[in-house]
Amino acid sequence: MVLWFRSQKSVGNIRRVRICESIHRGKGTGMTDTNRQFVLARHPDGELQESDFTWQEGPIPEPGPGEVLTRTLYLSLDPANRSWINKGGSYRDPVVPGQVMPGFTIGRVVASRYSGLDAGDIVESESGWQDFACLRGDDLYRLDADAPLELWMNVLGLTGKTAYFGLLDIGQPQVGETVVVSGAAGATGSVAGQIAKIKGCRVIGIAGSQEKCDWVRNDLGFDEAIDYKRQDMAEGLRAACPDGIDIYFDNVGGATLQAALLQMRRGGRIVCCGAVSQYDKAKRDPSPAGIPGLLIVRRLKMQGFIVMDHYGRRREAERELLHWVREGRIKYRLDIVDGLENAPRALIGLLHGDNVGKRMIRVAAED
Amino acid sequence: MVLWFRSQKSVGNIRRVRICESIHRGKGTGMTDTNRQFVLARHPDGELQESDFTWQEGPIPEPGPGEVLTRTLYLSLDPANRSWINKGGSYRDPVVPGQVMPGFTIGRVVASRYSGLDAGDIVESESGWQDFACLRGDDLYRLDADAPLELWMNVLGLTGKTAYFGLLDIGQPQVGETVVVSGAAGATGSVAGQIAKIKGCRVIGIAGSQEKCDWVRNDLGFDEAIDYKRQDMAEGLRAACPDGIDIYFDNVGGATLQAALLQMRRGGRIVCCGAVSQYDKAKRDPSPAGIPGLLIVRRLKMQGFIVMDHYGRRREAERELLHWVREGRIKYRLDIVDGLENAPRALIGLLHGDNVGKRMIRVAAED
Repeated sequence: MVLWFRSQKSVGNIRRVRICESIHRGKGTGMTDTNRQFVLARHPDGELQESDFTWQEGPIPEPGPGEVLTRTLYLSLDPANRSWINKGGSYRDPVVPGQVMPGFTIGRVVASRYSGLDAGDIVESESGWQDFACLRGDDLYRLDADAPLELWMNVLGLTGKTAYFGLLDIGQPQVGETVVVSGAAGATGSVAGQIAKIKGCRVIGIAGSQEKCDWVRNDLGFDEAIDYKRQDMAEGLRAACPDGIDIYFDNVGGATLQAALLQMRRGGRIVCCGAVSQYDKAKRDPSPAGIPGLLIVRRLKMQGFIVMDHYGRRREAERELLHWVREGRIKYRLDIVDGLENAPRALIGLLHGDNVGKRMIRVAAED
Repeated sequence: MVLWFRSQKSVGNIRRVRICESIHRGKGTGMTDTNRQFVLARHPDGELQESDFTWQEGPIPEPGPGEVLTRTLYLSLDPANRSWINKGGSYRDPVVPGQVMPGFTIGRVVASRYSGLDAGDIVESESGWQDFACLRGDDLYRLDADAPLELWMNVLGLTGKTAYFGLLDIGQPQVGETVVVSGAAGATGSVAGQIAKIKGCRVIGIAGSQEKCDWVRNDLGFDEAIDYKRQDMAEGLRAACPDGIDIYFDNVGGATLQAALLQMRRGGRIVCCGAVSQYDKAKRDPSPAGIPGLLIVRRLKMQGFIVMDHYGRRREAERELLHWVREGRIKYRLDIVDGLENAPRALIGLLHGDNVGKRMIRVAAED
């Protein structure tokens, strides 16, 4: 298999990534009369493989009463996707072989049998890894056209709102507190750290390369960054947080969570957002040592959450986040991969930490 | 060593337990001119032994400026005492060999060089395992004479307030929710479960004997009780909480915490109050499996606390708890052991679950 990445020079804060390969399937991204899709071939056994998915093409479906036919424009790739396809399940029913791979998307309404939406409307949807989907109109969220669609996939989207609710509602940052964010160069972590800065905290990022560390420190304004691939995590955290950590925003779990837990300060909060270090493993690491003892002794809170539980306040979050982006207080990078056919390898790369900023697939052109 | 327990018939809701032994030391509990004390002989290695303490007698100390001399009336025995004397420390500095064993007490002021207290005042103090102590007046809390002193050692004391703040502030029970309490026949668990009943919850207690289970179910009004020594915990919890647990008030840690964690319902809260199953072990059990994964997937909160952190609101708690006791909505048992000389074996018994209700030592008569 020939597979290579070509990183275009950053355009503003958008970096386009192309994954090209000498394959013949599904080259075009324009309007077609077939629906291309990836279905799950099997539950992965350990590290995700491209062969865990099957490409198939079929007819475009017809919307039923109350439904809408959407054309996928962008497909979000998120570490959580990997957890969905484990046999054991996650916060949603596990995907079963033969099922279209689910995924968060932005789409354009092509045909509507739902009174609240018209052809041409742009919606946030969960169409999955395919060109077209028929979805219940009630499940869709029409996007305000004020911001570029790419921003709706990113700071204003699932990952930005995850950072917003996780940090503010679960972490409850106070001015002057020390906040540590893992996966700091990822879509969620980069926003969580910047919100912590806005709230007057001292912010330390943990990321997996010099480039990522430079980005969060130099461009995003984090106070410090720790490269977990080159530094001892426990030592790095002790040096960066000599008085302890007030909030640890955890995107990764595993050894990083263990090191942070041991460095937590009395009354600290651990925001359990994700555990990307574990999703792609056949056998997960044991839970971090010190539970419940350390939680009691240091009066710590560990709390997990899923962003959708907070969607009663999604408009508040979107308004605030957009405001911060416009003020230049939240910066971002987009990591756009062209072509639905590249979804499996782009997800595999995401799980290996290849991305800086939000990774997404451009499935079709916006216009 | 000759050691036996004689349980007097319950008097009202007070059960007096005597531990008698053919030893000669410190028989009297009346006013003496010596200060009898237990000091830590060594950090225990695994299960606590009587020989981990040394009995000694010395002169009664003299209060310095701002200090008060107290005569200990009651000494509280709490599972946490065991964690304080481990080498590793706990939520307070570890006790070192040669130091008087610390403990929560109620005492009578004998002499005062502190303007806010007079001889004869009754105070909550931390005098430790001894007859007399000189303490800073600022550290003492004068007790309202409205309730019997035994109640101040129990429902109105440390354990009752631990139940109050842990359940209400950390657990945040809602009407109709399912609450599981371990150590349900203990001083803290029995009150936590009854407060949960007052708040309209369904309450399941976990305890270690038929007698304890009968007591929490029949006398305290818990909906169900599980005898963890005779039933499979996971099975018992699945049967008692088929729709899951909303709040798990954990006094014990270990295998019980693991079983409860797996049965938690979405949005559940685990109140990490204690881990008595672990304190007396040379090597603690590993953390329960499923962290952080389960916390995220089920949106769980695990939070540790120490009651003193909430003492800004202690009067509120005491008022409420006393009100519930007077209304007959909180019932209790006292497990009173006579004589300071019995403190080590009474603590060992507490760690083995010999008590029903609040265990304390009566060091001297109240009048």
